[in-house]
Amino acid sequence: MRRIATRLPAEPVIYLGDTARVPYGTKSADTVIRYARACATLLCKRNVKLLVVACNTASAYALDTLREELPIPVLGVIEPGAQRAVQATRNRKVGVIGTVGTVRSGAYQAVVHALDPAIEVLAKPCPLFVPLAEEGWLEGPVPAQVAHAYLDELLAAGIDTLVLGCTHYPLLRSVIAEAAGDAVTIVDSAEATAAVVADTLAAMGLACAPGGPPPRHRFLVTDDPAGFARIGARFLDEGHPARDLAEVEWVDFQ
Amino acid sequence: MRRIATRLPAEPVIYLGDTARVPYGTKSADTVIRYARACATLLCKRNVKLLVVACNTASAYALDTLREELPIPVLGVIEPGAQRAVQATRNRKVGVIGTVGTVRSGAYQAVVHALDPAIEVLAKPCPLFVPLAEEGWLEGPVPAQVAHAYLDELLAAGIDTLVLGCTHYPLLRSVIAEAAGDAVTIVDSAEATAAVVADTLAAMGLACAPGGPPPRHRFLVTDDPAGFARIGARFLDEGHPARDLAEVEWVDFQ
Repeated sequence: MRRIATRLPAEPVIYLGDTARVPYGTKSADTVIRYARACATLLCKRNVKLLVVACNTASAYALDTLREELPIPVLGVIEPGAQRAVQATRNRKVGVIGTVGTVRSGAYQAVVHALDPAIEVLAKPCPLFVPLAEEGWLEGPVPAQVAHAYLDELLAAGIDTLVLGCTHYPLLRSVIAEAAGDAVTIVDSAEATAAVVADTLAAMGLACAPGGPPPRHRFLVTDDPAGFARIGARFLDEGHPARDLAEVEWVDFQ
Repeated sequence: MRRIATRLPAEPVIYLGDTARVPYGTKSADTVIRYARACATLLCKRNVKLLVVACNTASAYALDTLREELPIPVLGVIEPGAQRAVQATRNRKVGVIGTVGTVRSGAYQAVVHALDPAIEVLAKPCPLFVPLAEEGWLEGPVPAQVAHAYLDELLAAGIDTLVLGCTHYPLLRSVIAEAAGDAVTIVDSAEATAAVVADTLAAMGLACAPGGPPPRHRFLVTDDPAGFARIGARFLDEGHPARDLAEVEWVDFQ
């Protein structure tokens, strides 16, 4: 959301956080597909012109289903991140960290191998990173030790590129980068995804013309709006989108 | 479930794990009440004679609502644990650790103060303990450091009793007890709750007669049954209930 709003300042964004059912990363494929379909249906009723599945687990499990079922373009976060990793690696050893679901799905491995079958992909689930990020426990000995516990195996295997394969992980970027060391390039799929959104809107003639008044973003959540406003500010800029956190709307799909 | 099945070996138990929507500990009161009501409705359709809300967060937020709405006795896990803590403390300083929801609700404080207003209750949310327990990360430097980060404040305040106010925490009991030290009595509400279940069934004339064939327990989950069987074995005994984990049934309330 933050990267897209920054990259495309003329586009109004409707953000839906399924905050009552998060985290998705520990759920089964069937459940993630069911919830992702419900989220997408709700957003389509609001007449969105393009859907970004801005969650790696939902992208890994539900992207094909949503592309088949929806009448609008659907973008995930895995393809853009995997492409960046393929461009970045020199020794063809890429590490991917993500949720249990994302790693188990094999989605990053599949996209990387479709681009370059010679690249070795080492994927590691890091389930403690999501609660650390949600709690704002972003520095100090505990996150550092957790990062080492997860990353040391990938580093020993010689990766030179590490994909942050979960939308929560950029909050822990400094602790992850410190554990990984200077020789490892960190890939954050958010920037890459925002670029693909821009390209897709342009190619389809769907982009808003620049120069108008600033767009009005909307935030929808399935749990308490006040709780979201508190945590959401941690993820969003101090600038434009955070201003709108005062107007969070509760929705549900039951 | 484990404590009840051990304490009441003649009683068949229907266990419902809302595994698609866990954890409850980070959700708002409204959402927890809505989900708890849906779980209770589903179990009542299976003709249970007594309902145990075997989750501290759901007990904290939804017990009063369920007691009003349901035609059967409803027991929570907070009252039994709070009673044990009141009996155990010598210096009248009781620590309670639980989820954000349980601590924010003030439910332990209210029950303890109803029994003895002179007892000081120091409650501390420990949100990382649930994912640590779910991941089976139960020993070593990371859980020990997390335990110290949470408990040191309570220990400095001089508690002599500590309530494990979340059904996940007994898995981390050894690391919690080590951080707390020998001078602190640990209270696990599961045993206390099982005793109250036995007393209630007896008092209402609802107890099954002993001596029959072993009862058939049932396990219902809202996410993938195979995933539950894997994690559930960590919580349940190697003995009787685990045997039944082969027969986990998927249910949903939508």
